[in-house]
Amino acid sequence: MDINFEKTGGLAPAIIQDETSGEVLMLGFMNAESFEMTRRSGEVVFFSRSRNRLWKKGESSGHVLKVCDIRVDCDADALLIRVNPVGPGVCHKGYRSCFFRSLNHKGAARVVAERTFAPEAVYATTNATAAKASE
Amino acid sequence: MDINFEKTGGLAPAIIQDETSGEVLMLGFMNAESFEMTRRSGEVVFFSRSRNRLWKKGESSGHVLKVCDIRVDCDADALLIRVNPVGPGVCHKGYRSCFFRSLNHKGAARVVAERTFAPEAVYATTNATAAKASE
Repeated sequence: MDINFEKTGGLAPAIIQDETSGEVLMLGFMNAESFEMTRRSGEVVFFSRSRNRLWKKGESSGHVLKVCDIRVDCDADALLIRVNPVGPGVCHKGYRSCFFRSLNHKGAARVVAERTFAPEAVYATTNATAAKASE
Repeated sequence: MDINFEKTGGLAPAIIQDETSGEVLMLGFMNAESFEMTRRSGEVVFFSRSRNRLWKKGESSGHVLKVCDIRVDCDADALLIRVNPVGPGVCHKGYRSCFFRSLNHKGAARVVAERTFAPEAVYATTNATAAKASE
């Protein structure tokens, strides 16, 4: 079936969910090429909007996402990719999930997860900006 | 904390996850106004890109989404909203989740969920296009 990549300028949002735990790990965007690479290779490839290039998740960290199932929504413009994640976490800040903060009723953020790894030991760079850019 | 709505032209993707089952139910977009309405009212309000207006989920079906928790990702540009959904499903096609289709290795879609309600009985319109537009 055809995925509609046109609603977001050639991209579709892709939700990454842990197949085993059900935890939502992150959200990335895919263009048609990264979607095809993901489908054929069995490992998640995004399109990075900030770097304007294909981005294989785990290319520097080794924390690749092994695809178990690809789901498509009713409008075929959003993807839900159920994965087995390799490694202790997907977030460049050292958490299992990128959604490690919760907002309280006043809109203030609170960290609700434990760090599962030290990002500085995984990303071979020395500052947060570079760490982000490398992953 | 401030949510970054600028990466997607004033919008941020919002993943809707069932608080109890962990099932991912749908993905919508929020602008700053709909996000504030969601946060303050405790019920999910999206911004509909196709209709270019605020869209309270359930406004016609009654299938509102009661907010349990709002999570923000590391870049503060994506939202994960954990909800208690009211009613048998969120999808205008009659399923609990909008992600009711799975792609096989050839890219063909297969329905992997059971219908939980008859959309024509819920949406007071007579065709699929109108049903979608009403919700």
